[in-house]
Amino acid sequence: MVKPGFRAKERCDALGTAPFSDSDDCLYRPYLGPAHLKAAEQVGEWMRDAGMTTRLDPAGNLVGKWGEGDTSLIIASHIDSVRDGGKYDGPLGVMLGIECVAALKDEILPFAIEVYAFGDEEGSRFPASMLCSRAVCGQIDAAALGIADRDGVTLAEALDKAGLDISRFLDAKRDPAGLFGYLEAHIEQGPVLEAEGLAIGTVTAIAAQRRYEVEVTGTAGHAGTNAMSLRKDALTATAEMVLAIESVGSRGPGDLVATVGALRVEPGAPNVVPGRVVLTIDVRAGEESVRDKAADDCLIALAAIAQKRGIGVKHRLIHDLPASPCDPAFMDVLAVQAPRRIVSGAGHDAMAFAKVTPSAMLFIRCKDGISHNPLESVTGEDCEAAYQAMVQFIRTIGKPYD
Amino acid sequence: MVKPGFRAKERCDALGTAPFSDSDDCLYRPYLGPAHLKAAEQVGEWMRDAGMTTRLDPAGNLVGKWGEGDTSLIIASHIDSVRDGGKYDGPLGVMLGIECVAALKDEILPFAIEVYAFGDEEGSRFPASMLCSRAVCGQIDAAALGIADRDGVTLAEALDKAGLDISRFLDAKRDPAGLFGYLEAHIEQGPVLEAEGLAIGTVTAIAAQRRYEVEVTGTAGHAGTNAMSLRKDALTATAEMVLAIESVGSRGPGDLVATVGALRVEPGAPNVVPGRVVLTIDVRAGEESVRDKAADDCLIALAAIAQKRGIGVKHRLIHDLPASPCDPAFMDVLAVQAPRRIVSGAGHDAMAFAKVTPSAMLFIRCKDGISHNPLESVTGEDCEAAYQAMVQFIRTIGKPYD
Repeated sequence: MVKPGFRAKERCDALGTAPFSDSDDCLYRPYLGPAHLKAAEQVGEWMRDAGMTTRLDPAGNLVGKWGEGDTSLIIASHIDSVRDGGKYDGPLGVMLGIECVAALKDEILPFAIEVYAFGDEEGSRFPASMLCSRAVCGQIDAAALGIADRDGVTLAEALDKAGLDISRFLDAKRDPAGLFGYLEAHIEQGPVLEAEGLAIGTVTAIAAQRRYEVEVTGTAGHAGTNAMSLRKDALTATAEMVLAIESVGSRGPGDLVATVGALRVEPGAPNVVPGRVVLTIDVRAGEESVRDKAADDCLIALAAIAQKRGIGVKHRLIHDLPASPCDPAFMDVLAVQAPRRIVSGAGHDAMAFAKVTPSAMLFIRCKDGISHNPLESVTGEDCEAAYQAMVQFIRTIGKPYD
Repeated sequence: MVKPGFRAKERCDALGTAPFSDSDDCLYRPYLGPAHLKAAEQVGEWMRDAGMTTRLDPAGNLVGKWGEGDTSLIIASHIDSVRDGGKYDGPLGVMLGIECVAALKDEILPFAIEVYAFGDEEGSRFPASMLCSRAVCGQIDAAALGIADRDGVTLAEALDKAGLDISRFLDAKRDPAGLFGYLEAHIEQGPVLEAEGLAIGTVTAIAAQRRYEVEVTGTAGHAGTNAMSLRKDALTATAEMVLAIESVGSRGPGDLVATVGALRVEPGAPNVVPGRVVLTIDVRAGEESVRDKAADDCLIALAAIAQKRGIGVKHRLIHDLPASPCDPAFMDVLAVQAPRRIVSGAGHDAMAFAKVTPSAMLFIRCKDGISHNPLESVTGEDCEAAYQAMVQFIRTIGKPYD
C-alpha cells in the first residue's frame, strides 16, 4: 500500500493535468473556472473516501467534515493556481489534510476536523488575493462581489455561473467560537529547508512586509559629451542604493529580506546619461520591529547616497502589512516533529485565520525553492514527513491535558 | 550695427519658429520636409546677401560659394533638427560660416569658401544619420536611396518630391582634390566649457566609441521566501557592475566617458528577486587605445563580479567607431584663439570630412550642457567669440608661408 504522504503528492500530480487546468499549454486553475470546479469534484470524492461529508460553501470553497464537536480544527490550503503554475503550491496542504482524516477517523478527538480547499488564494483571476480564506474569516465585505476579471466577469457573475447563491456569499464566514484552530501545510517556496537538508519546518509567523516606491532624480544628458565628474547620473546613484539595500537585508536575522524587484531607467537610451530611476523596495521580516528598523536603515542609506551625489530621492510607502504570528503553543507542538522554525516571507491563507483562531503552519521542502512555475517539485518522502508531523500534531492538541 | 556673432545667433532664433518647423508644438525640422526646404530658402537668401552664389546639391544640401581657387575651404554644419530640438545644434555653425564670408569677402585668399548647410545630420527622419556629409565625402552608396522613414517614404521619393534628380544623388560627392580643408563650429552639447568659464574650445578629435549589450543572469525567485544569503540576484550583481563601469570611466583622462544608459530588469515585479538584467555600456575617448583599455577594464570587472556572485554574464559588441582626429596643424591655428582642447564625445559631420581633408572643429559653450531640447541656449557673446576665432583661423591658414 502506498504511504499517505506519497499518495497526497500523487493526487497533486493527478490534478496537474487535464481536465484540471483551464489551459492546454500549462497548469492554470483560476478561481471558479471550469478546472477549479472539476478539481473540487475530484477532491470531494477523495474527501468522501476518507470518511468525510462534503459541501461547497457559498464562496465556492470545498469543505470536507469528519467527526463531531462544538469546535472544528480547520486543515486547509487552496486549490487554485497561478498561470503556468506548479502542482503543489496549495493542493498539497489539502491532500495532506485528507490523509490526516483518513489516519484519524477511528480515533476519538475533542473536535471535528474540517478540511477546506479554498477556491482563491493566488488572486490569479480577480484583482484580489486570498478572497476565500478572508471570506471564511469574515474579513471581506459585499463590495468584493463587484470586482471583475480581465474579461469583465464579476465575482458575483462567476459565483452565479458556478451555481452558487450570490446572496449567501458572506455566509461563508465561520463564527470563531466554532473554531478550535487552524493548520496549513504548504511548500516552502524558498530554499532554506533545502539548504539545511531538512524535510519540514515550523512556521513562526508570516512576515511583516513594507513596500516603497522610490524615485531617484538626476540630470539626463548626452553620454558622449557629459564628463564623468560633472554628471548627476540617476542610475549610478541608484546602483549604490541597490547595494545598500542588499547590505541592510543581509545584516539582519535570517528571516529579514530586502529586495529591489522593479527598476525603470529614464530615458533609458544607450547614449543618454540616465536622468531618472523609479524602483521598488520590499522589506519583510518575522518581527515588525526588525522590518521597521531595516526599512528605516534603507531609507537613511538612500538619503545619504543622494546627498553625497547631489541627486534627488523621494519615497512613497505603498504597502504596510503587519506580521501574522502563529500560535506559540501550536508552534511548540509542531516543532517537536519539525524543530527548524522558519518565518514565511510569502503570504498564505493562514494570515486570515491567525487573526481569529490559533493557527499553525508547516513548511515542506521544495526543490531549488522554486514555485509558481512548472518546475515546482517535492519528494514523496518529504510529504510523508509532513503527514507524520501533522497527524502527531493533531493527536497532541486533541489530547486532554493531564 | 549688430555684431556678426550676435546676428548668427539671431538668425538661428528666427529659424526656430514657423514656418521653419514641421510641428506646431515644437521645433522639428527633418531632412527634406517642408520646414527644411523653407529653411534652405531663407539661409540661401542670407548667403547671397553675404556675397555668395547658392545652389542645392543633389543630396539636398544648400551650398553657398564665395571666391575662386583650385580648392575650397568648406565651412559647414547641418540645418535639420531632432524632434523637439533646440535652435542652435547645427544652424549656428552655418550662420557663423556665412558671417565669416561676409567678413572676408573683400580679402584675397588662396581658396574659395563654400558654406554647406547639410540636410541630414541628426537622422531624425530616416534610420541613418549624417547622410548628407557622408554623401559629400563619398561615404555612402546608392542603397541609401531605399531607406524609408516612419511613413514608408523612401529617401528617393523624398528627394524626388523636393525636386531633386535621384539619378544624380551620388554626384553630391566632392573630389577631395578640390578641398582645402573643413571647418565646423558647433555647440558643445556638454558642460565642460561652462564649468571652466570658457566661451570656446578647440576640438582635438571626435571620440572613438564602443558600445556593448550585456546580459546578467541570476535566478528569479519570490522576494519574501528567498533568504538573502541564498540569492542569485541579477540586479544587485548589476548594481556592482554599474558602479565598476562608472569607476573605470572616472579613473581615465577627462575625455573618457563610460555610461550605462539603458537597463531592463526581468521579471521586474516588486515581489520577485530579479533573474535577468540587460544593460548597455557606452565607452568613448579621444584616443582609441584609451577607449579600448577602458572597455576591456569594464568587461574584466563585470566578469569578476559575476564570478564572485555566482551569476552569469555575457556581452555583445554592438558599435565600434574609430576616433576621428582633427588635423594637428589646423588645431594649433584654432587653439591660438581657443586654447582649451577638448574631445567631442558626440558625433558630428566633421567625422566624414576628417577622412578626406584636413578638418577642424570649434566648440561653443552652451547653457548647462543641454542640447536636443528646447532649453538649448547660447549667448551672443560666445557666438561672437566663435566668429572672431573662425575669421582669424581662415586668415591664418590662407596666409602664404613666409
